[in-house]
Amino acid sequence: MKALVYLAPGKKNLEDRPIPEITSPMDAIVKVTKTTICGTDLHILKGDVPTCEPGRILGHEGVGIIDKVGSGVTEFKPGDHVLISCITADGKCEYCRKGMYSHCINGGWILGHKIDGTQAEYVRIPYADTSLYKIPAGADEDAIVMLSDILPTGFECGVLNGKVQPGSTVAIVGSGPIGLAALLTAQFYSPSEIIMIDLDDNRLAVAKKFGATATINSSDGKAPEKLMKMTNGRGVDTAIEAVGIPATFNICEDIVAPGGTIANIGVHGTKVDLHLERSWSQNISITTRLVDTFATPMLLKTVVSKKINPNLLISHHFKLDTILEAYETFGQAAKTKALKVIIDV
Amino acid sequence: MKALVYLAPGKKNLEDRPIPEITSPMDAIVKVTKTTICGTDLHILKGDVPTCEPGRILGHEGVGIIDKVGSGVTEFKPGDHVLISCITADGKCEYCRKGMYSHCINGGWILGHKIDGTQAEYVRIPYADTSLYKIPAGADEDAIVMLSDILPTGFECGVLNGKVQPGSTVAIVGSGPIGLAALLTAQFYSPSEIIMIDLDDNRLAVAKKFGATATINSSDGKAPEKLMKMTNGRGVDTAIEAVGIPATFNICEDIVAPGGTIANIGVHGTKVDLHLERSWSQNISITTRLVDTFATPMLLKTVVSKKINPNLLISHHFKLDTILEAYETFGQAAKTKALKVIIDV
Amino acid sequence: MKALVYLAPGKKNLEDRPIPEITSPMDAIVKVTKTTICGTDLHILKGDVPTCEPGRILGHEGVGIIDKVGSGVTEFKPGDHVLISCITADGKCEYCRKGMYSHCINGGWILGHKIDGTQAEYVRIPYADTSLYKIPAGADEDAIVMLSDILPTGFECGVLNGKVQPGSTVAIVGSGPIGLAALLTAQFYSPSEIIMIDLDDNRLAVAKKFGATATINSSDGKAPEKLMKMTNGRGVDTAIEAVGIPATFNICEDIVAPGGTIANIGVHGTKVDLHLERSWSQNISITTRLVDTFATPMLLKTVVSKKINPNLLISHHFKLDTILEAYETFGQAAKTKALKVIIDV
Amino acid sequence: MKALVYLAPGKKNLEDRPIPEITSPMDAIVKVTKTTICGTDLHILKGDVPTCEPGRILGHEGVGIIDKVGSGVTEFKPGDHVLISCITADGKCEYCRKGMYSHCINGGWILGHKIDGTQAEYVRIPYADTSLYKIPAGADEDAIVMLSDILPTGFECGVLNGKVQPGSTVAIVGSGPIGLAALLTAQFYSPSEIIMIDLDDNRLAVAKKFGATATINSSDGKAPEKLMKMTNGRGVDTAIEAVGIPATFNICEDIVAPGGTIANIGVHGTKVDLHLERSWSQNISITTRLVDTFATPMLLKTVVSKKINPNLLISHHFKLDTILEAYETFGQAAKTKALKVIIDV
Repeated sequence: MKALVYLAPGKKNLEDRPIPEITSPMDAIVKVTKTTICGTDLHILKGDVPTCEPGRILGHEGVGIIDKVGSGVTEFKPGDHVLISCITADGKCEYCRKGMYSHCINGGWILGHKIDGTQAEYVRIPYADTSLYKIPAGADEDAIVMLSDILPTGFECGVLNGKVQPGSTVAIVGSGPIGLAALLTAQFYSPSEIIMIDLDDNRLAVAKKFGATATINSSDGKAPEKLMKMTNGRGVDTAIEAVGIPATFNICEDIVAPGGTIANIGVHGTKVDLHLERSWSQNISITTRLVDTFATPMLLKTVVSKKINPNLLISHHFKLDTILEAYETFGQAAKTKALKVIIDV
Repeated sequence: MKALVYLAPGKKNLEDRPIPEITSPMDAIVKVTKTTICGTDLHILKGDVPTCEPGRILGHEGVGIIDKVGSGVTEFKPGDHVLISCITADGKCEYCRKGMYSHCINGGWILGHKIDGTQAEYVRIPYADTSLYKIPAGADEDAIVMLSDILPTGFECGVLNGKVQPGSTVAIVGSGPIGLAALLTAQFYSPSEIIMIDLDDNRLAVAKKFGATATINSSDGKAPEKLMKMTNGRGVDTAIEAVGIPATFNICEDIVAPGGTIANIGVHGTKVDLHLERSWSQNISITTRLVDTFATPMLLKTVVSKKINPNLLISHHFKLDTILEAYETFGQAAKTKALKVIIDV
Repeated sequence: MKALVYLAPGKKNLEDRPIPEITSPMDAIVKVTKTTICGTDLHILKGDVPTCEPGRILGHEGVGIIDKVGSGVTEFKPGDHVLISCITADGKCEYCRKGMYSHCINGGWILGHKIDGTQAEYVRIPYADTSLYKIPAGADEDAIVMLSDILPTGFECGVLNGKVQPGSTVAIVGSGPIGLAALLTAQFYSPSEIIMIDLDDNRLAVAKKFGATATINSSDGKAPEKLMKMTNGRGVDTAIEAVGIPATFNICEDIVAPGGTIANIGVHGTKVDLHLERSWSQNISITTRLVDTFATPMLLKTVVSKKINPNLLISHHFKLDTILEAYETFGQAAKTKALKVIIDV
Repeated sequence: MKALVYLAPGKKNLEDRPIPEITSPMDAIVKVTKTTICGTDLHILKGDVPTCEPGRILGHEGVGIIDKVGSGVTEFKPGDHVLISCITADGKCEYCRKGMYSHCINGGWILGHKIDGTQAEYVRIPYADTSLYKIPAGADEDAIVMLSDILPTGFECGVLNGKVQPGSTVAIVGSGPIGLAALLTAQFYSPSEIIMIDLDDNRLAVAKKFGATATINSSDGKAPEKLMKMTNGRGVDTAIEAVGIPATFNICEDIVAPGGTIANIGVHGTKVDLHLERSWSQNISITTRLVDTFATPMLLKTVVSKKINPNLLISHHFKLDTILEAYETFGQAAKTKALKVIIDV
C-alpha cells in the first residue's frame, strides 16, 4: 500500500509498505478513505518530536471502513464506516476510567507517532472498541474527519477547560485551525463575546466568518490594551491560548479577568513567565490538556444535528498520490490560506 | 483607645487613638476582645505593601462584641458576639453575587490595609451585615479567631481550589501556619495521603501532629525525587503552594500528577517559571485566589461540631499592652516556634 | 395612582391608591413604565394562593424608572432605568449567600403577593440594591420585562436544573409561555434535539418557530410511546415539566432516559405518583425550584448581545387603563393565542 | 464444585456444579475465597426478582484468586488476588464511557442474577479487565469483600448523590447494613451532623458506634417532628432513604430542607407519593441510582489507608459448607443482629 513515511528530520516520502495485520485480539485494520495533516506532523518532520522515529507512517486523523477485526473486538465488523480518534484508549486503565484517555497507559497519542498512522491506505488501530466511532449512515465524511483531533482539541482543551458559559466573554489568541476550532465550539455555550486575536488580518477575517464578535490584530504589541478597552477594563472570563509561544501566553495573562480562566491549547517548546506576583490574588485558573477525545460522541451528535459545520475548517482537497503537494500547501498556510486539507485515499 | 499603628517601613507603635464612629448606615463598631497577627502584617511593616499608608491601625482578624450599628444594619445589635472576617463584602456588587467577596468593588481586603484594623480596642466594620458572623453562645472564642483569615484561606485557596477528594494524594509545600491550616482542613475530605514538605524539621514534626501522613525535608533540594518515590512515580493529585517563592512553586510543578491541580496560596513577590514545555499535555490546573471567606459559615459549623480543632494553630497568648512583644515572637517563628498568637484586648 | 387590586376570589379592579413611600433605608420607589401578567396572578384571582390577601396590588414583573431611594441604597439613583426582579433578596441571609434568593428570609416572592406589586404606576421595592437591575442604555424595554420572571424561571428551573448540554436530547412538556421560555433558553447549550409536547397544535406550531426540533401532540395519551420511537427507545436526557399536573409529570417519568433529569417548573396543586418501583435503579434526578433570579445578570447580557430574542414571547400590548381587558386576553390564551401581554403604564 | 443454587421461590440448596469455563476472550475464572449474602439474594429467594431464573447460582459479592483468563484479558493473570464487583462493565458502551457501569449494555448487575454468581467455589467473570480489581498485598480480605457492593452502594447512591459536604446535616432513614454503609462513607466529607432514623433501638445503638451524632426511633410515627426540633425547624441538607418503602420515603420528604437532596438507595416494590404541591418551590433534588461501582478504586484506597474500617459491617463468619445456616442468620437479622456475614469458601 502507499504510505507517507517520515524518513529523517526534513525528509518524508510516499512509499510502498505492506498492509498492516492484526497483532492483538483488540486490533482492527481500517481501510482509510480520508485523512488530513496536522500541525504536529510538521513538528515531527522538523525533528521536534524525538519520540517519533524515522520510518514511521505519519497521520493520526481520518475516517475509513473496517477491513478486519481481532477476536476480542465486539463493537465493529468489516464494512462499518468509522471515525479514527487521534487518541488510542484501552478503556480499562486508571486514566481511561476517568475519561482521561490522553494518558492511557497503553495508548494515548500513539498513532503516527509511536505506531504507524493514517496517511496510508490501511492502518492498524489497537483497542478498536474504545478508539473508533461508528459514523451514522449518510453523514458527510469530510466533516467527520474534523472530529479525529481538531474539534475535540478546540472543544476540550479550550472551551470545556475554559468554562465558556452563556453570556460570558471569551478571547482566543491565535486564529489558525485550532483557534478556529475553539471558536466554532465555543458557540455551543452562547457566550456574549468572542474576541479573536492574531497577527494576520486574513486569519482574522476568517474568524469573523466563523462567528467572532470582534477581532484584534496584535502585531503592534498592544492587544492587551485594546482588549481591556473593548471590555471596559474588565478583561475576559476565558482566554484561550491557541499558539504555543511565550508571547501569546503572556497576552492571556494580561487579559484574563479576576475569577477567569486561561485555557492552554498550544504546544509549547519553552517555558513561559507566570506573573504570580500579580495573579496570586486574582482567583484565576490556568489549565493544560492533551485532548482526551472523551467528547467525541457528543461532538458527533452536534455535527449530525447540524449544530456545527466543520466543513468551514476545510480549505483544500488532495488525493493520496499528491500528499506531498498537500504538505506543501498546508505548510505554507500564510501564503495558501490553508486551514485543514482533506486527503482522499 | 490603644491601637497598634504602622508608622513607616520598619516602624510601628502602640498609640492612643480616638474610638471610631459610624460613618455609613451599614457600619458597625465592634469592641475587639481578641485579635491576632498575620504574616501580611509583617509584609506591611517591611514596606512591601505600598497600598497601606503610614498611620494605619493594623490587623484584619479578630472577634468582639457589637458596640453600635448604623441605621441600615439589620443582622446585628449591640451586645452580639461576632467574628470579624478579613474580607469586607458589600453583598451586592457583581463579585459578591458570585461569592467572590475578595474582589468586592467596595470591600475586599481593606481592614488594617486601606482602613483602620482590628489590633485596637475598637474597630469600624463597613457592610457589617455581610462582613461579620454571629458567634454561637458557648463557643471557644480563641478558636473562632482562626476563622477570620487563616482557616478560610487554607481551605478555600488550598483545599477547595485543590479539589482534595476522598482517597486522593495531597502534598503541601510549606509547613507554616497557612500550610498547617490547609493540612487541618484538607482532612475534611479524607484524602489517603497528605505529604508535608518544608525546610525545617521542627515544623514537619508539628505537621505530623496535625495529621500529615508523611513529611519531606526539602533542604537538600531533592523533595521532588523523594516524593515521586513515595508515590511510586505517580506524583500527587493536589499540590498546595503555601510559601510564595519560585523554588516552592517549582516543587509543585515537579510533583503534580497528570490530571492534578496546583493550588497556590502563597503571596508571591516575583514571577515564577511555568514549564509549559513539559506541562502543556499533562491536563493540570493551576489556581490562584485571595480568600473569599464565603466558606466561613460552613467552617463555623465544623468548629462548633468539633470536626476540626483550630486551637492547634495557637502557640502563644499576649495582652494588647504587650503586642509589640507579640510581634517580636511571631516575627521570629523559627526560634520561638510561634504559629498564631492570640492578643487578648 | 392607578393600580390593579385583588379584591376577593374572582374579583379584581383598577382602583386609585396612594403612591407608595420609602419605609426602610433599603427601599426604592420605582415609577413603573411597563408591566405584565403572570399565570400566578390568575391563580391568586381564583383564590388558590391564600397567602395573598384581598386588597393587594398584583404584579411581580416590570421595568421602570427610579423615583426615590432610601438612605442605605447605594447602587441606584433617581432617573435610573431598572428591571424589577420577581424575587426580592436581602442579599445577606443564609439563603441569599448561596444564591438561593427565592428563599430569602426577608424576601423571596413577596411582590404582588405579600406586599403591593407592579401593576400600578408606582411600586415600593425593598432591598433595592439586590432586587433591581440597571437596564443598559438603548435596550429594548419590552424585551427586558421578560427578564423579571419568565426567562429566569424557564432557564433556572428548566434548563439549568435539567442540565441541558451540547448534543443532549430535551423534551419540554407544556408549550405555554413558561415552556417556551425554557425552549428559548435551552438553546444556549446547543442540545441536539428539543421535543415539545402539548395538547394544542397551535402552541406546538409556535414552538416550532421558537426552535423546537420536533413536536408531539399528547391529546391521544400516547406521547411517551411516540417520544420513545423518536429517540430509538432511549428517552431524553432532560424532561422539563412546564404544566403542573400529575398527567404531565407522569409523561416526564415515562420518557426520561437512564441517567437523565426531570426538571419541574410547574406549580402543582396536588401530589403526584413517583414510580420508584421502576426508577429506583435508573440513576435519575428530579428537581424542583422556585426561580432564584440569580441568573438575571447573565440573561441580561445574552439579551443585550442578541443571543436570545425575548420579544418572541410577547403577543399583545395594552395600556394600564385597559388592564382588565389585558387580563381577559391573557386568561383566554387558547382562544386569543396570548403568550405574554405587555402593559404600558 | 459446591454452589448455592436458587431452585424456586422459597427454595435453595448447596449443590454440586461443574467448574465454569472461559466462554469469551474477556472472561476470567476466579477461585472464590470469600463471599457474602446480600438483601437482594433474599428478594430473589422470595420470588421478587423474576429476571433471575431457577437454577441460578446466587451471589454478586466476593474476593478470590484468578484461576484462568481469556486471551483478551491483559490486566490479570492466574494467581492475582481480586475483588469482584457486583457490577459487570464492558468498559466500552455508551454508559460505561460515562462511568454509569450499572447500565452497561452488556453487563450491569448480572452476577448471581442473569449468570451464575459468587456463592460457589469458582465463578466466571465476563469483561474481567473492567469488572475486577487487584487487591494490594497484605490487605484485609474480609474488609475488601465489603467493597463488592455495600460500600460503593452506600457511598455512590447515598453520599455522593446526596451531596454530603463538610458542615452539612445528614439524616439516614434505615439503620440496616446499607444505611450503615452510607453512615460510614458519609464521614469522608465531615458533615456536622448525621442523624440515624430506624424503628429498632438495637440498630440505632449500632449506628451510634458507627459515628451517628444523633438517633431517632421512628416507631411512634413522629420522626419528622423530632428531627425538625433537633435542627431548629430547618430540616436536613441530605436525606438518605435506605429502606425502600413509601413510609420511609415520606419521612425523607418531610425532613429535607429547602435546597436539600433526597438520595434514594432503597429497592422499592411500589410507587410512592411525591408531594409536589408542597415541594415544587423548595429547590430540592431527588436522586435514584443503581450502584455503578465507579468509586471502587477510590474506596479501595481509603480502606488501604485506614480512612474507613469496613470490618465494622461484618457480624458473622461461616464456611461455604454451612451457607444455609448463614442465610438463616442473615435472614433473621432482627433476632441475630446480623449485619454482613462472611462466607469463607
